[in-house]
Amino acid sequence: MTSSFYPPLRTLMGPGPSDVSPRVLGALARPTIGHLDPRFVDLMDQIKELLQYAFQTRNELTLPVSAPGSAGMEACFVNLVSPGDTVIVCQNGVFGGRMKENVERCGARAVMVEDAWGEPVSLDKVASAFEQHPQASLLAFVHAETSTGVRSDAAALCALATNHGALSIVDTVTSLGGIELLVDAWGADAVYSGTQKCLSCIPGLSPVTFSPRAVERIRARSHKVQSWFLDMQLVMGYWGGSTKRSYHHTAPVNNLYALHESLLMLKEEGLEAAHARHRHNHEALVAGLEAMGLAMAVAAEHRLPQLNSVLIPEGVDDAAVRAALLEDYDLEIGAGLGALAGRTWRIGLMGFASNERNVLYCLGALEAVLASQGARINAGKAVHAAQAVFKR
Amino acid sequence: MTSSFYPPLRTLMGPGPSDVSPRVLGALARPTIGHLDPRFVDLMDQIKELLQYAFQTRNELTLPVSAPGSAGMEACFVNLVSPGDTVIVCQNGVFGGRMKENVERCGARAVMVEDAWGEPVSLDKVASAFEQHPQASLLAFVHAETSTGVRSDAAALCALATNHGALSIVDTVTSLGGIELLVDAWGADAVYSGTQKCLSCIPGLSPVTFSPRAVERIRARSHKVQSWFLDMQLVMGYWGGSTKRSYHHTAPVNNLYALHESLLMLKEEGLEAAHARHRHNHEALVAGLEAMGLAMAVAAEHRLPQLNSVLIPEGVDDAAVRAALLEDYDLEIGAGLGALAGRTWRIGLMGFASNERNVLYCLGALEAVLASQGARINAGKAVHAAQAVFKR
Repeated sequence: MTSSFYPPLRTLMGPGPSDVSPRVLGALARPTIGHLDPRFVDLMDQIKELLQYAFQTRNELTLPVSAPGSAGMEACFVNLVSPGDTVIVCQNGVFGGRMKENVERCGARAVMVEDAWGEPVSLDKVASAFEQHPQASLLAFVHAETSTGVRSDAAALCALATNHGALSIVDTVTSLGGIELLVDAWGADAVYSGTQKCLSCIPGLSPVTFSPRAVERIRARSHKVQSWFLDMQLVMGYWGGSTKRSYHHTAPVNNLYALHESLLMLKEEGLEAAHARHRHNHEALVAGLEAMGLAMAVAAEHRLPQLNSVLIPEGVDDAAVRAALLEDYDLEIGAGLGALAGRTWRIGLMGFASNERNVLYCLGALEAVLASQGARINAGKAVHAAQAVFKR
Repeated sequence: MTSSFYPPLRTLMGPGPSDVSPRVLGALARPTIGHLDPRFVDLMDQIKELLQYAFQTRNELTLPVSAPGSAGMEACFVNLVSPGDTVIVCQNGVFGGRMKENVERCGARAVMVEDAWGEPVSLDKVASAFEQHPQASLLAFVHAETSTGVRSDAAALCALATNHGALSIVDTVTSLGGIELLVDAWGADAVYSGTQKCLSCIPGLSPVTFSPRAVERIRARSHKVQSWFLDMQLVMGYWGGSTKRSYHHTAPVNNLYALHESLLMLKEEGLEAAHARHRHNHEALVAGLEAMGLAMAVAAEHRLPQLNSVLIPEGVDDAAVRAALLEDYDLEIGAGLGALAGRTWRIGLMGFASNERNVLYCLGALEAVLASQGARINAGKAVHAAQAVFKR
């Protein structure tokens, strides 16, 4: 019969959710209070400030959407796109395709700029898309592609948009808290993220921030936003300003306790220190994987430290390896997606999960599983190679 | 400076969120696992079964939307409404107005059937709306109006829709778990609810269920659903069937632990026992309020036991009373909304919060605050009158 659910204690090194800090789980379980309680309204103000720090922005319209990252994506599109608009969408992995869906469901036209999965967005292709489509009102791209582990040059892409009189929509689901993200300095206009990656928080919220230019465009809309739930003009009434909060929807109170705690942890550590930690653990993991004889799927200069795509060696059974890691080691790593399905694994080192113990545990477990399945690897070197990076 | 947030320990007797059971908070804080983990997929199956029990339905498409109740509402409308449709919308409180917004944002026409705030939906008015608009493809109404505390006759309204060849969309945000709700027996087609009312769970999820007729209409759509996030054809790929789950969005894993636990508690208690408990505590509260000399805002036959609208006595400062209850008693009750703002209080007795202690505590605190503010009440009788109901 059905009974209370006690999850296994996994180590989460896939593409997210990542391991959630015990501090965050502790905050999550504190007693629920009302979403209009004055003490909760104070908390909302603190969350906004902490998000402004995490995003490196002074944008007034900065808040967590009460739903997962895909709803944050949709919030950016439905508020900024009007029927008939032309939007340049960059696709170099799964999430560019989802952006295209969003544009089309807003009754607008998506001009696709495609790059190979595993490559960053090409600045030249985007520049020529703007030349061919000067009426384009938006450029949308993914900063850190979760499906491939590739970083694109967000600063340059935002600048291209601005130079062509367009606004930018930037997916930072996997970058926030893990690598440099400078919303104001880059001039990014609408930015969304998720809580379950480098913020080490539970899944279910999507931090977003909109520049003053983006807010101006939202206010100037002649069509109502097609989503009531995601209409930022309404959401602003609850999250915005210091005056009376008007009820829009019931905020996910406990999830916001958790987000507050995770953002506080990020601020205590400091963004630069958090980025350095992600980089350092990534270097150790790569040293270990390469010592084992595995090859990375992405060129070194485009790699995300928080999401490591590894080529699956010839003859190795992808699903069997991941199943053995999960069953025998309680260790989750990610499968490849789309064009990379069956060809790569995705090893996440995100947020709280980006630590020495996880790097060493994963290398040891992966080596043992590959060896037991008869894969040709250089045994006995991986953990040592990673330790050498930690000790230098 | 910013530090960890420790909420005050409130007693939540407003319109929701209601007090969350410690069992549910305990489940919430269990370690996060991946949203594609086989153990998590098992949990999803259990949640679906438990929701089918709570909704009293065999509908295959029964699941929690990963966002608050207003997103559940939107999920029903965007999937079932196409541009140009005519939808009959009943309004007897706040939420009918939100339904109208949803219909219009889908490019359809809302035919409004209006009743006074504090009254149930009039069956005669709905019948004549169908006669005047035979092309109407949907009837939308609120079963339990959270803004007024009124129950409408959902069985009869669903039958009216069916008899006119229309589907029904039913808001059960405040009814699920608190009063009788028979999705299959009534022939309701698309039903949404929330987790933070009579389920005693945290806010942030919206259970929904769609009848086979509703699913057929969704599958027959010629327009894509305007929301990618809420497109049930895509969501079904993750939640539906027993075959391979395809990734749609990252499920709010910990919230689903909590929902599972709260649904399990409901099943352990049994729906009929839960309804009887809500009714009994309501009777005790009303006896106490009336003994104090206060009057209920809704006629006895239309009252919701889980949400009690009380008229504010003449000359009493609404906001001051609620502030004193919150500050001096850590007790939250709800303000009136819209047409009833400043005229009523809304006292919730929902889910875990529907218990004897809360009834007695609320009556004692309210009496003390009203007396201290010089209101003319019959002092010293309320708690005793409620106790008499409990003891009979």
